[in-house]
Amino acid sequence: MIKTDILIIGAGPTGLFTVFEAGLLKLRCHLIDALPQQGGQCSEIYPKKPIYDIPAYPEILAGDLTDKLMEQIKQFEPGFTLGERADTIDKQEDGTFIVTTNKGTKHHAPVVAIAGGLGSFEPRKPPIPNIADFEDKGVEYIIRDPELYRDKKVVISGGGDSALDWSIFLTDVASSVTLIHRRNEFRGALDSVDKVQELKDEGKLTLITPAEVKGIVGGDKVTGVEVHKKDEEPFIIETDHFIPLFGLSPKLGPIADWGLEIEKNAIKVNNALDYQTNIPGIYAIGDVNTYPGKLKLILCGFHEATLMCQSAFQRIFPDKKYVMKYTTVGGVDGFDGTRKEAPKAVIKSIN
Amino acid sequence: MIKTDILIIGAGPTGLFTVFEAGLLKLRCHLIDALPQQGGQCSEIYPKKPIYDIPAYPEILAGDLTDKLMEQIKQFEPGFTLGERADTIDKQEDGTFIVTTNKGTKHHAPVVAIAGGLGSFEPRKPPIPNIADFEDKGVEYIIRDPELYRDKKVVISGGGDSALDWSIFLTDVASSVTLIHRRNEFRGALDSVDKVQELKDEGKLTLITPAEVKGIVGGDKVTGVEVHKKDEEPFIIETDHFIPLFGLSPKLGPIADWGLEIEKNAIKVNNALDYQTNIPGIYAIGDVNTYPGKLKLILCGFHEATLMCQSAFQRIFPDKKYVMKYTTVGGVDGFDGTRKEAPKAVIKSIN
Ligand SMILES: Cc1cc2nc3c(=O)[nH]c(=O)nc-3n(C[C@H](O)[C@H](O)[C@H](O)COP(=O)(O)OP(=O)(O)OC[C@H]3O[C@@H](n4cnc5c(N)ncnc54)[C@H](O)[C@@H]3O)c2cc1C
Ligand SMILES: Cc1cc2nc3c(=O)[nH]c(=O)nc-3n(C[C@H](O)[C@H](O)[C@H](O)COP(=O)(O)OP(=O)(O)OC[C@H]3O[C@@H](n4cnc5c(N)ncnc54)[C@H](O)[C@@H]3O)c2cc1C
Repeated sequence: MIKTDILIIGAGPTGLFTVFEAGLLKLRCHLIDALPQQGGQCSEIYPKKPIYDIPAYPEILAGDLTDKLMEQIKQFEPGFTLGERADTIDKQEDGTFIVTTNKGTKHHAPVVAIAGGLGSFEPRKPPIPNIADFEDKGVEYIIRDPELYRDKKVVISGGGDSALDWSIFLTDVASSVTLIHRRNEFRGALDSVDKVQELKDEGKLTLITPAEVKGIVGGDKVTGVEVHKKDEEPFIIETDHFIPLFGLSPKLGPIADWGLEIEKNAIKVNNALDYQTNIPGIYAIGDVNTYPGKLKLILCGFHEATLMCQSAFQRIFPDKKYVMKYTTVGGVDGFDGTRKEAPKAVIKSIN
Repeated sequence: MIKTDILIIGAGPTGLFTVFEAGLLKLRCHLIDALPQQGGQCSEIYPKKPIYDIPAYPEILAGDLTDKLMEQIKQFEPGFTLGERADTIDKQEDGTFIVTTNKGTKHHAPVVAIAGGLGSFEPRKPPIPNIADFEDKGVEYIIRDPELYRDKKVVISGGGDSALDWSIFLTDVASSVTLIHRRNEFRGALDSVDKVQELKDEGKLTLITPAEVKGIVGGDKVTGVEVHKKDEEPFIIETDHFIPLFGLSPKLGPIADWGLEIEKNAIKVNNALDYQTNIPGIYAIGDVNTYPGKLKLILCGFHEATLMCQSAFQRIFPDKKYVMKYTTVGGVDGFDGTRKEAPKAVIKSIN
C-alpha cells in the first residue's frame, strides 16, 4: 500500500504543479497516470508545439513546460505510479481514501485530488479480431521502454507523429523496423517525414503503403502479422512485436462512477471556495473540473491547484493554522534536505 | 482623452498579464500606475530577489518576471500613463467610465480593471517642515529620469537598497553625489554596500553618517540642505537636488472612495464568476481583491485576469459569442501586425 498526504490522479501540468504547492505546506504527494510519462496532454499530444499563454513565457514548447515543472517539484520527491489507471476509490471509516489501479496497486491518502484532464489516455486499437489475445505478448499500444525492442523485429503501424518518431527512434534499437500505413501520405512534422524518407532510402527501415495489418499470428507470443496491401494478395511478415500507434484518446472512464457530480463530462466543483467536489476530501482541478466561467487552460489549473492545497491542509490538520509566507521571503525547504532562498540583505557599515 | 477597451489601474504582474489575455480577445488595454515603471511590487520592492512559485519557473528574479511579461504583451501595444495616480472615476450615462489621475489625465473605457495590488505606491517623506514647498523644485522622492541629474549636484538620503543603488548609478551622471544616512550601517545587497564603500574610498561619492537632513534652503529651487551630524554643529551643503529615498508604501487611497465594497483594505469580488465588483463593469483582480480563500499570489492574479477578460468581452460585445482557441492552435495575432504560430504539421507522401 502506497501512503501519501495528497493522492493526485493525473500527472499533467495541473497535477505536477500541485506537488509544488503541497510541498510548500509540507504535504507529500503521489501521482497516478495511465500514461508511461508525465505531462498529460502536453507530453502526449503536442510536446513539440509552442504554447504562448503561459504567464511570463512568451513562448514555451509543451514538452519543455513539463520538464520545467518536473524540475520545480523535484525537491518535494513526488511518487509516481505510471502506466496504470485509477479504477476504484473506497472511502474508509476514518474519512481517508484507498484508490486502486487496473493493475491492483493500492494507494492510501486523506485527500484525493483528481487532476485527470480530459480523462485517462487510452489507446485507439485497430479492429483486429484476435488482437486482445496478444496484448503484452508482443502487441503494445504505447511504448513504455524502448529497450524492450533491443535487437527485436518490430512492425509499427500508423501515419502520424508517434508512428513516424518511434519508427525513427527504433531503427537504432531494433534489429528491423517495418512501418505500415494505410495511405502513402503521412501527417506530422516535416522533419520527421523527411527523416523516415531518408531511412527508407538508406534501407534502414521498410515501408509498406498503402497497407493495413488485419491479423496477428503466433502462439504464446506474436510471431507475425498479416498485411493487406492494395492490389496484392495478403501476406505475412515475421515480427516479434506489433505496435499500432493510432493515437490515444482520453476517457473520463471509471472516475465517472465514483459518485461525483458530473456535468458535460467534467466534475462539478465549488469554485467559490476550494475546488472541492460533492464528496468532501475529493477535489477536482484543471481540465477535469467544471464551474461557471471555467476555462480549460493550463494557467487556470495552476491557480486551482494552489487554492486546493490550502483547503487540503486544513482538512489534514484541522487544528493547525497555516501562515502563508512568500517563497521569496521564506525560501523553499525540500523534503530532500535542499533549501532554496533569496540572498539575504546585509547590514554593514561603510567607513 | 485616452480611449481604450479595458482601462487597467496598476501595472503590476496582474495588470500586465491582463493585456495579453485581453489581446487574445482583440481588446486593447491602457494602464495607469503611480510608479514611473512597470512591475508593481516586483519592480519596486524586490526586483533582484528570486521568486520560486511562478509555475514552470523553478526560480526567476522579480525584475526578470516583469521583463518577460512586458515581452509577452508587446504585440498587443498597451498604452501607459505612468507616474500618475488614478484619483476619480465617473460613470457615464452609457455605462462607460472616465478615470482621471492626480495630474488631470483622463481615460475613457467601457470596462475598468483594478489591479492595484496593495495600493498606489506613495513615497515615505522625511519630516522636514518646508519640504512640500520644494517638491518637483529640486526635491524628488522617486527617480523617474536619471538624465534630470546630469552634471548637477545631488544629495541622496536613506540607508536601503534604493539609496545605495541610485547613489552608485548617479556617480556616473551627476557632478557630485552626497549620501546621507542616520546610521553608519546600511541595509542592502552585499554587492551594493561594497560598491558604495569603494566609490567613497575613490573619492567619487561623499558619505555623511550618522547624519540627517533637517532643513532645505532655496528660493524657487533647492540650493542646499541643512545637515545635522552627531556631535557637530548643523551645516549647509550646496546642492541642486535632494532625493530622500525612504521607500514607498502602498496606500489603497482614492480607490477606497469609489463606492466599491471594501473588506480588510481590499475590494470584494464575485470570485464564483468573473471577479467583478459590486459596480458592474468594474473588476478587481490580483492582490487588490478579496474573496473566501483568496491568496495574494502572483499566479492567482494571472488566473483572475484571464477569467475577467472573458467577462469583459461579453460586456463590451453582448451579442458576440467568443469561441476560445488554444494559443497553440490559433496562434497569436498582434495588433502590430505580427503573428506567432506553431509550425504546421505537413501531409506528405513517402515513396
Ligand atoms: C493541441 C492542444 C493545444 C493546446 N494548447 C494550449 C494552450 O496554448 N494553452 C493552454 O493553456 N492550454 C492548451 N491546451 C490545453 C492544455 O493542454 C490542458 O489545459 C492541460 O493539459 C490540462 O492539464 P491537466 O493537468 O488538467 O490535464 P491533462 O494534461 O489532460 O492531464 C491529465 C492526466 O490525467 C491522466 N488520467 C486521467 N484519468 C486517469 C485515471 N483514472 N487514472 C490514471 N490517469 C488518469 C491522463 O492520462 C492525463 O495524463 C492545449 C491542448 C491541446 C490538445
Ligand atoms: C518582498 C516580497 C516578496 C514576495 N514574494 C512573492 C512570491 O514569492 N510569490 C508570489 O506569488 N508573490 C510574492 N509577493 C507578492 C507579489 O509581489 C504580489 O502578489 C504581486 O505583486 C501582486 O501583483 P498585482 O499586479 O496584483 O499588484 P502590485 O504588484 O501591487 O501592483 C499594483 C500596482 O498598482 C498601482 N496602483 C494602485 N493603485 C493605484 C492608483 N490609484 N493609481 C495608479 N496606480 C495605482 C501601484 O502603484 C502598483 O504598481 C511578494 C511580495 C513582496 C513584497
